[in-house]
Amino acid sequence: MGITEQPDAHADVNSYVIGIDYGTLSGRAVVVRVSDGVELGSAVLDYPHAVMDTTLAATGAALPPEWALQVPQDYVDVLKSAVPAAVANAGIDPARVIGVGTDFTACTMVPVLADGTPLNELPEYADRPHAYVKLWKHHAAQRQADRINELAAERGESWLPRYGGLISSEWEFAKGLQLLEEDPELYDRMDHWVEAADWIVWQLTGQYVRNACTAGYKGILQDDAYPGEDFLAALNPGFTRFATDKVAHEIGQLGASAGTLSAEAAAWTGLPEGIAVAVGNVDAHVTGPAAQAVLPGQMVAIMGTSTCHVMNSDHLAEVPGMCGVVDGGIVSGLYGYEAGQSGVGDIFAWYVNNQVPARYFTEAAAAGLSVHQYLTELIKDQPVGGHGLIALDWHSGNRSVLVDHELSGLVLGMTLTTRTEEIYRALLESTAFGTRTIVETFNSSGVPVTEFIVAGGLLKNAFLMQTYSDILRLPISTIASEQGPALGSAIHAAVAAGAYPDVRAAGQAMGKLNKNVYTPNEESAAAYDKLFAEYSLLHDYFGRGTNDVMHRLKALKRDAGASLETSAVSA
Amino acid sequence: MGITEQPDAHADVNSYVIGIDYGTLSGRAVVVRVSDGVELGSAVLDYPHAVMDTTLAATGAALPPEWALQVPQDYVDVLKSAVPAAVANAGIDPARVIGVGTDFTACTMVPVLADGTPLNELPEYADRPHAYVKLWKHHAAQRQADRINELAAERGESWLPRYGGLISSEWEFAKGLQLLEEDPELYDRMDHWVEAADWIVWQLTGQYVRNACTAGYKGILQDDAYPGEDFLAALNPGFTRFATDKVAHEIGQLGASAGTLSAEAAAWTGLPEGIAVAVGNVDAHVTGPAAQAVLPGQMVAIMGTSTCHVMNSDHLAEVPGMCGVVDGGIVSGLYGYEAGQSGVGDIFAWYVNNQVPARYFTEAAAAGLSVHQYLTELIKDQPVGGHGLIALDWHSGNRSVLVDHELSGLVLGMTLTTRTEEIYRALLESTAFGTRTIVETFNSSGVPVTEFIVAGGLLKNAFLMQTYSDILRLPISTIASEQGPALGSAIHAAVAAGAYPDVRAAGQAMGKLNKNVYTPNEESAAAYDKLFAEYSLLHDYFGRGTNDVMHRLKALKRDAGASLETSAVSA
Repeated sequence: MGITEQPDAHADVNSYVIGIDYGTLSGRAVVVRVSDGVELGSAVLDYPHAVMDTTLAATGAALPPEWALQVPQDYVDVLKSAVPAAVANAGIDPARVIGVGTDFTACTMVPVLADGTPLNELPEYADRPHAYVKLWKHHAAQRQADRINELAAERGESWLPRYGGLISSEWEFAKGLQLLEEDPELYDRMDHWVEAADWIVWQLTGQYVRNACTAGYKGILQDDAYPGEDFLAALNPGFTRFATDKVAHEIGQLGASAGTLSAEAAAWTGLPEGIAVAVGNVDAHVTGPAAQAVLPGQMVAIMGTSTCHVMNSDHLAEVPGMCGVVDGGIVSGLYGYEAGQSGVGDIFAWYVNNQVPARYFTEAAAAGLSVHQYLTELIKDQPVGGHGLIALDWHSGNRSVLVDHELSGLVLGMTLTTRTEEIYRALLESTAFGTRTIVETFNSSGVPVTEFIVAGGLLKNAFLMQTYSDILRLPISTIASEQGPALGSAIHAAVAAGAYPDVRAAGQAMGKLNKNVYTPNEESAAAYDKLFAEYSLLHDYFGRGTNDVMHRLKALKRDAGASLETSAVSA
Repeated sequence: MGITEQPDAHADVNSYVIGIDYGTLSGRAVVVRVSDGVELGSAVLDYPHAVMDTTLAATGAALPPEWALQVPQDYVDVLKSAVPAAVANAGIDPARVIGVGTDFTACTMVPVLADGTPLNELPEYADRPHAYVKLWKHHAAQRQADRINELAAERGESWLPRYGGLISSEWEFAKGLQLLEEDPELYDRMDHWVEAADWIVWQLTGQYVRNACTAGYKGILQDDAYPGEDFLAALNPGFTRFATDKVAHEIGQLGASAGTLSAEAAAWTGLPEGIAVAVGNVDAHVTGPAAQAVLPGQMVAIMGTSTCHVMNSDHLAEVPGMCGVVDGGIVSGLYGYEAGQSGVGDIFAWYVNNQVPARYFTEAAAAGLSVHQYLTELIKDQPVGGHGLIALDWHSGNRSVLVDHELSGLVLGMTLTTRTEEIYRALLESTAFGTRTIVETFNSSGVPVTEFIVAGGLLKNAFLMQTYSDILRLPISTIASEQGPALGSAIHAAVAAGAYPDVRAAGQAMGKLNKNVYTPNEESAAAYDKLFAEYSLLHDYFGRGTNDVMHRLKALKRDAGASLETSAVSA
């Protein structure tokens, strides 16, 4: 093939990489040209089992509140279906593909045997909810997270400040402890507690490599160590060797190769056996390079069903309520910071599905708009504050800066003349206020945010983007790709394949950004400042313990659910 | 006719009275047999102009927020249309009708000339919003009410505690002051500021008699005096003689005759000229006798778009946040207490119209149910607290016990799995918590509530009634008439005509009650106690000044509206 004779052979105009982005509801494969990042074709597969949050598909049995499961085979189906479809759609010769990169939702955990077989694929466990993938938004391990946090604070564990002072119920240790305590038989049977990000790479290569990103952000790996056995034993004696036995494994750095495409995966995908497969990565974290935004102070927000914020810095700081800071967590050589909002587009979708009358659907269809677009059109010219509403964007809990998934949503200010689209706008605004809370926390913690760059599906809503610009009082740049994570994965594939020396260089060549598309309107910004003051007051009142009503209501809800189950059993 | 020979002639089986109930959106006439209260026929007219709360019908001009106007001629149309239709429907000889009684929403105010002509009927004023009727739920005089309350508290006015310490923006003085300050020309032109309850009697009889009920509850007439001229002058020099010149007039006691049916009104209605017309009254206050509930401790709640609570007591007490206490305000010889919730059925209707998706309408229709019934069916078996929600029932402000129409609605606890019907239930519950707040305030003020009797359209919702019983921990009796106010008006007509010695006696003979239809379920009541504790915490936090966010949001909304008007003008 003459590769060794051509120093930059892989980056020529005839080389391609595949980026595969595993989202919450679907997996998307994109074919990208190595030389310049041009996207030539893509394909999507909706996961056949989607998210199981009310019933277990295998049995139809009800799941308790806050659960969210997936089926691992759905991820493999993406390899079999979306990858060859993307290659066909691109019209390229698959033999010109030199690498594959993937990114995944996180923290999404698969309990597996030593050979990588997910426990739910064992027939005897198919009816056990704990045998399935716990999706990132599985929020049923809050009590375990609370105990982890209390004990860590009490003992002054050195890793705790690296996570804003709070470990999330979404992460590896809380979910693992829930598994142990609620289904100890499965816990014992499980050989590895694997991030889906690494499990899919394992399926591609036949090798288990644990990526540095999730190991740090979700797995509490700091300064090469996990939480100690005495700490874990104090949580639960059965949990003593959790880190050692179930979690710890060889670490792969971002952009490195995790191995090569196996014969089996080559058959699934139609790609050449033996090409490079990049170390696993997270949807948000791969997007920075795709948006050419890996410098200190450049905050990248990937806005979709939820929002993830990633930003690099050249120094280590403790930001209250951040998700985490990991050395080399986004690109090597910088500290990577992560923060997040657990519900954003999800909240808008919930509202449209559950609180919007028929006439809006009819009128939207007549206008050739989606209901989201139509609601936005109806309300976008109302002066700031004209609806008299404030909302808290906690329908899916609060990740940053409160790290509390027992919080819930609020809308305040309704009158008998409040219109459906006014509440919709208040919900849009609430997520921007949530983002401002995060940005201000970074600013006041010595890691200032100087640029705000948006990727993800929501950047299509120009009114939402302008609202963010006004509320944040920052110019907003947007990624110039509709598939930022997949492009980011492709960039990592190119680095893993040796086409570029590092992720930064590949990002400069292959990433795409529209600079300062939105700039703040001073009049709106001043009016939003007043609403933000109200948001902050409610945020602190309900979120910082003055009135724990949201926690108590969730406890009552659980009790009511338990009483219902009891009465159903006794009936 | 030999009437003098037959001591109880009017109460024979061939005598009838007409009760006319003027509601928010329609007027209803009912034909009632004097001897036993049997309702023989009825008819309704929806007001042609309904409620004008966004635009003025005559010009299409936009109205500011919180306005609510009506057209007086609509009330006369009820006399012309619904009364003869009811008589025809009853199949009686109109010559056997011996009296007419009316009740009205209050405080609903008509600005008129000396002959009773409403100002809006003068062509030169047809385009002036202030020339129209200010409906009870016109809430744009809050700033005037605030000033009245501040000044009265500062001066220690003796009448203030009779109104729970607060005069409502809905009442005669606040609305009158708004008229003076916003349209002084009309204020000067107006000869009388008349309750619609009295204006309609004026149309029937040709005579203006001011009823003791609204004069006391809405017109601040206490111990035969109105607020003094020095007090009024301190509010606004132009307001000095408001009580003397615009308000004060001959008072008529409840159940007395205000005069006889004029020839003109006889022609409108088809009823005999010269029959008795009862003194005007208020929808809520006439209902007590209709439900045989005029004894101390019997609280009657008239539950419809809003709820009004009336109760008699043999002693005078100061109940914080009550609407008022008036000697003889409900029946002579007892102190009549009034309290209220300004939004109840209105809130449920707003929710169904603005927050319920198409599928509920489709499924309700398929099941042969109204959407309200269908939502109730879906949620009624959920254990208490199962939805994890708390709402504040302030979409139309709070009348009792906070007397603050700048408050607004709240829903808290939503998650991404919250269902439409769960929020509906939380709204139902919130109104019951509002009622419990009122009942507990009466109890702790030395005027204990011992029975709870429901009248009004909402008593048809059995789940709602059971919820009230559980939340109040009181048995609930229901009026056995579908038209309680009209029946109450008919009872007053019978007394005015001399068929009974007093309202109590007439109520015993003609009123109708089903006793203790609902009794508290202890398990539910205990669970609701926990939710009520949460409601109370939020009630006091948002309603008693700890966080005045609702006030501030309404101010911002007004500012935004003003800026919109300015920009429209300059555009």
